[in-house]
Amino acid sequence: MFSNRRTVRIEWGDCDPAGIVFYPRYFAMFDHSSVLLLEAALGMNKHALYKTYEFDGYPMVEARARFLIPTRYCDDVVIETSVTEVRRSSFHLQHRLTKEGALAVEGFESRVWIVRDKERPGRFRPQPIPAEIVARLTEPTAPA
Amino acid sequence: MFSNRRTVRIEWGDCDPAGIVFYPRYFAMFDHSSVLLLEAALGMNKHALYKTYEFDGYPMVEARARFLIPTRYCDDVVIETSVTEVRRSSFHLQHRLTKEGALAVEGFESRVWIVRDKERPGRFRPQPIPAEIVARLTEPTAPA
Amino acid sequence: MFSNRRTVRIEWGDCDPAGIVFYPRYFAMFDHSSVLLLEAALGMNKHALYKTYEFDGYPMVEARARFLIPTRYCDDVVIETSVTEVRRSSFHLQHRLTKEGALAVEGFESRVWIVRDKERPGRFRPQPIPAEIVARLTEPTAPA
Amino acid sequence: MFSNRRTVRIEWGDCDPAGIVFYPRYFAMFDHSSVLLLEAALGMNKHALYKTYEFDGYPMVEARARFLIPTRYCDDVVIETSVTEVRRSSFHLQHRLTKEGALAVEGFESRVWIVRDKERPGRFRPQPIPAEIVARLTEPTAPA
Repeated sequence: MFSNRRTVRIEWGDCDPAGIVFYPRYFAMFDHSSVLLLEAALGMNKHALYKTYEFDGYPMVEARARFLIPTRYCDDVVIETSVTEVRRSSFHLQHRLTKEGALAVEGFESRVWIVRDKERPGRFRPQPIPAEIVARLTEPTAPA
Repeated sequence: MFSNRRTVRIEWGDCDPAGIVFYPRYFAMFDHSSVLLLEAALGMNKHALYKTYEFDGYPMVEARARFLIPTRYCDDVVIETSVTEVRRSSFHLQHRLTKEGALAVEGFESRVWIVRDKERPGRFRPQPIPAEIVARLTEPTAPA
Repeated sequence: MFSNRRTVRIEWGDCDPAGIVFYPRYFAMFDHSSVLLLEAALGMNKHALYKTYEFDGYPMVEARARFLIPTRYCDDVVIETSVTEVRRSSFHLQHRLTKEGALAVEGFESRVWIVRDKERPGRFRPQPIPAEIVARLTEPTAPA
Repeated sequence: MFSNRRTVRIEWGDCDPAGIVFYPRYFAMFDHSSVLLLEAALGMNKHALYKTYEFDGYPMVEARARFLIPTRYCDDVVIETSVTEVRRSSFHLQHRLTKEGALAVEGFESRVWIVRDKERPGRFRPQPIPAEIVARLTEPTAPA
């Protein structure tokens, strides 16, 4: 399956009075990793996706994380993100955030490929993921 | 001029490892106060503004703040926001954030009334603020 | 079990370019709800907890949320938070965020009662939750 | 004077429903740039500063920004940060955020070198910046 990897420096402003990352910030980091993975896998960003496909986003339907080791200002952490499953109109991603090689936070997310629901304004409905996008998400990442 | 006032509880997640509010959070608080003031003054929210006027927003063109006293998790602070000047296509707001009556943070902002610039996609251009909106912004707040 | 309830106005700055809440913001809202619940249940804030008990926090060990209905700028949502289980050194909370009565986001969290681990600097270790705190967390909320 | 430069990818979660960066996020980006500049200039991070000097931080006393061109998800922007003045117990920094070479946001900040005020708990007081730190902040950046 497709995956990516990036190094993130923990910022002073990511951390709370206990000196550790305020956990919603991990979800923001994971979201950006997912966005980057999808850009890399699909060869286009969300703007281009909107134009190329009848697409209105891939919002989160379920997010989960386990917090094993605290991280702090000035830590350099590695986030590895992989597609773990692609279904008809949804897909799953996994994030492993490591600090000096040790697993610090593990994240799991389910996202759904959606279009705006013309019959219910302000609501969305799932739509099958286009076949070529399924193909891109499920192919192994090319060696760097 | 129009003004409003609200009490904000400082949250754990607003604060940094020094135990004090991470200062960009004050700007987020001030932004929400400005949005609330404009909703109250105009009697409608941004969604309604978009529909009622040829309007695309009132983005910040300049923001400034002075930080006098630190605030912390569990502090209840009061934010008083006032329109200080309304010009042809811009307006100014002031925020006074107090803690137990003492001025802790003072904010100043200049915003511009804009429409999307049809000749330069992705850019905006200023537009005169409609007369009835000028009237609402410059009238004294009704006594509560 | 102890519970609390608050109304939250969705802010412009909580939302992303799709016009819906950027989901890590829900976790920040839930965190504040949990902090408020613990303050109400224990009759003291974190500062006082640090002084009263050999306590260094109740960090998240697992967080999960399901996103059912998008919420947007200017929505007033209700967040109901309840203790669902109290174990020896951990406890569980549930959040139900509703919009016009409909369940929009559901959150689950496991937190652990910790002290700083003197033998491994920068790390924490779980500690049994004091009996009177278990009692407070597991008693029904007094009728308002 | 000392300066640094970094490229930042604008994230989906940095942007608001108008599709442009929610301006408090720029202040968070600038804060991290200032932290990185100080780490580079002083050859140590805040943790080490606390240990090496009688130091309790360099909080913001005044922050200002002008917003000239909106930036959006997927923009790569460059942030150049320079020390512009070093006084007895305060120093000034300037940030220039450019997009495709054009100045998009300009930031100015005044920070003060502080210690905890032992006579007024929870408050801080300014202290002269150590001479060797003044020297480091005012020397030109070594060519890369």
